[in-house]
Amino acid sequence: MNPVFADLPTSVFETMSRLARETGAINLGQGFPDDPGPADIRARGAQALAEGFNQYPPMMGLPVLREAVAAHYAHHQGLDLDPTTEVMVTSGATEALAGALLALIEPGDEVVLFAPLYDAYLPLVRRAGGVPRIVTLRPPGFGLDEAALAAAFGPRTKVVLLNNPLNPSATMVSRADLELLAGFCRRFDVTAVCDEVWEHVVFDGRAHIPLIGLPGMRERTVKIGSAGKIFSLTGWKVGFVMAAPPLMRVLAKAHQYLTFTTPPNLQEAVAYGLGKEDAYFEGMRRDFARSRDRLAAGLRGLGLSVLPSAATYFLNVDVAPLGVRDDAAFCETLVRRHGVAAIPVSAFYAEDPVRHLVRLCFAKSDATLDTALDRLGDLA
Amino acid sequence: MNPVFADLPTSVFETMSRLARETGAINLGQGFPDDPGPADIRARGAQALAEGFNQYPPMMGLPVLREAVAAHYAHHQGLDLDPTTEVMVTSGATEALAGALLALIEPGDEVVLFAPLYDAYLPLVRRAGGVPRIVTLRPPGFGLDEAALAAAFGPRTKVVLLNNPLNPSATMVSRADLELLAGFCRRFDVTAVCDEVWEHVVFDGRAHIPLIGLPGMRERTVKIGSAGKIFSLTGWKVGFVMAAPPLMRVLAKAHQYLTFTTPPNLQEAVAYGLGKEDAYFEGMRRDFARSRDRLAAGLRGLGLSVLPSAATYFLNVDVAPLGVRDDAAFCETLVRRHGVAAIPVSAFYAEDPVRHLVRLCFAKSDATLDTALDRLGDLA
Ligand SMILES: CSCCC(=O)C(=O)O
Ligand SMILES: CSCCC(=O)C(=O)O
Repeated sequence: MNPVFADLPTSVFETMSRLARETGAINLGQGFPDDPGPADIRARGAQALAEGFNQYPPMMGLPVLREAVAAHYAHHQGLDLDPTTEVMVTSGATEALAGALLALIEPGDEVVLFAPLYDAYLPLVRRAGGVPRIVTLRPPGFGLDEAALAAAFGPRTKVVLLNNPLNPSATMVSRADLELLAGFCRRFDVTAVCDEVWEHVVFDGRAHIPLIGLPGMRERTVKIGSAGKIFSLTGWKVGFVMAAPPLMRVLAKAHQYLTFTTPPNLQEAVAYGLGKEDAYFEGMRRDFARSRDRLAAGLRGLGLSVLPSAATYFLNVDVAPLGVRDDAAFCETLVRRHGVAAIPVSAFYAEDPVRHLVRLCFAKSDATLDTALDRLGDLA
Repeated sequence: MNPVFADLPTSVFETMSRLARETGAINLGQGFPDDPGPADIRARGAQALAEGFNQYPPMMGLPVLREAVAAHYAHHQGLDLDPTTEVMVTSGATEALAGALLALIEPGDEVVLFAPLYDAYLPLVRRAGGVPRIVTLRPPGFGLDEAALAAAFGPRTKVVLLNNPLNPSATMVSRADLELLAGFCRRFDVTAVCDEVWEHVVFDGRAHIPLIGLPGMRERTVKIGSAGKIFSLTGWKVGFVMAAPPLMRVLAKAHQYLTFTTPPNLQEAVAYGLGKEDAYFEGMRRDFARSRDRLAAGLRGLGLSVLPSAATYFLNVDVAPLGVRDDAAFCETLVRRHGVAAIPVSAFYAEDPVRHLVRLCFAKSDATLDTALDRLGDLA
């Protein structure tokens, strides 16, 4: 058995969701909304399932979806992508990420990553044969730092993997930091893999800046998006990959052998959804921001210290003032004693973890958030 | 870029389907039925999409589907699988296969494969770091051979990968051959990965024999199945993996990082479908056998030499009597001049290919098959 995988624990998201199911806790751990998602998009998928074509779609994705992806990013982010050579559909962003790493990394290549990191990143880099070089970002700002980048990049660096907006910190990488990173990519001839699944879930009028749009990055960036995150349908597992043709040709080979293709009915529904008017996306953001504010206000009302959340479904509570030294043990207590599941931020660090932050998902109904707040009433 | 993927061509199935779309040819290449698939299963999926839960299901799959898988294989193949520890749902059999190889192979491990082989096998084995040892099977019987197995297995062999029923030969591995192979697995302490996606599509009263059911194989076999193949809904990409708990624990880690999970609406519909009465599966087999016989009779009527087909959606035509030396060039002519797409069997060999067989998919309506036969009228 391969030790990279054999020696790993089950994902903290899965473990916490299972614990929540078993204990009847309110699940503010794994990031998913508790509403059923947009009715019109679901109806469109249902119709395609019941009446449409259910056989293999083209390996790169349905043309209608690839065109919708290109049009969507042209409209929302000013990108100019050719749907036939620069857009591919995958079975979720995780597959897109796995495929990109397996396609781009040769054994011994160095890969720069940023912690906190999503728990799939390191095992995928290692299983692809890459040597991780981790740049640690720290609260409250989680900003990049030129000296740390200079220490991480070198002649063997082939890939940098960036999640922006960043989960779990709920921060967005600033334009200045993106430019700094782009400079390193150009200087060391590095391909950037950009996990931008949270690009639409940004608040308070902020705008997502795609790394692929920066000077010199068009030819060296793999941009990954997720319909599950865009439309709050996390179970659908429809992702997109965007990259210049020479990169895409290799990414397509990996996709061909990982899942080959993605259910055509879901693809059709996502193609429809991507064309929705701006008001839909603004409404979605406004609703999530309202939920964020409700949870944050409630937590502050309990005397807890809440970090700002600029994006994602998450906010973080600083539990240092409660005397907490071990966020994982604290989350175990939270779920078992208080009936609220959360994610310890230390789970996103491979070394020298931040141990005083607890991540809560606010993408829930008011009633769910209020019940969680009730249960947390005796915490502070 | 990783050379294992970068140097590969696009899959012959995808290439032929695209050529067929571009030229308006009848597509008897890539294996998929041209009917819409079972209406009740599609309706069930549509209902789950429109009214059900569309967020992350458990990483291992919905409990209702894992239970249905265990019950299905107990009923149809006499297997005794624990749904909570020995069954996992994947985003199609390709993901299951990719995950199994990434999980089981350590760099330098030898992997025994049988040619003809599905085109994902070799790149996946190589990308996982495995060293392929290919046993070549030849027409007409495509049987195993003790001497060839003895030459292929050795102390470094860790995995054997078997497709049974075998695509493209449309043959089933005999019980004697399975026992021979099981003996080698036991002797050399090898894990068998069994791609049994065609297990239900078997004809003329034949019964599929799962390798995992043979003495000593229960603990060392990974069995892979496919709802897309079982229900003729090839676009759905819902697969299953079955293995003893110590194997499953590692397979689950690979799945966790490849796609994480699979759309819950499709899972629900497949759970329903797996419980269908025997008559459904018998009817499906009878219908496909009828189509097989129609195409075979038509081809024979044209003076062509048709090999027997015991299973799968395929039959093979022996084109040696037509003076064909290069089946790939011949298929190019077939699609461009005759308007019928087919798959050259040489595409399934890595070395020393069989070059005189052409694979045709008969999983089509009578009208489609008859039109194809019309177009092939001047061939012999
Ligand atoms: C794929 S489970 C993780 C979901 C998620 O993005 C999160 O909770 O951080
Ligand atoms: C995944 S495309 C190949 C489909 C198939 O099984 C075949 O045509 O052999």
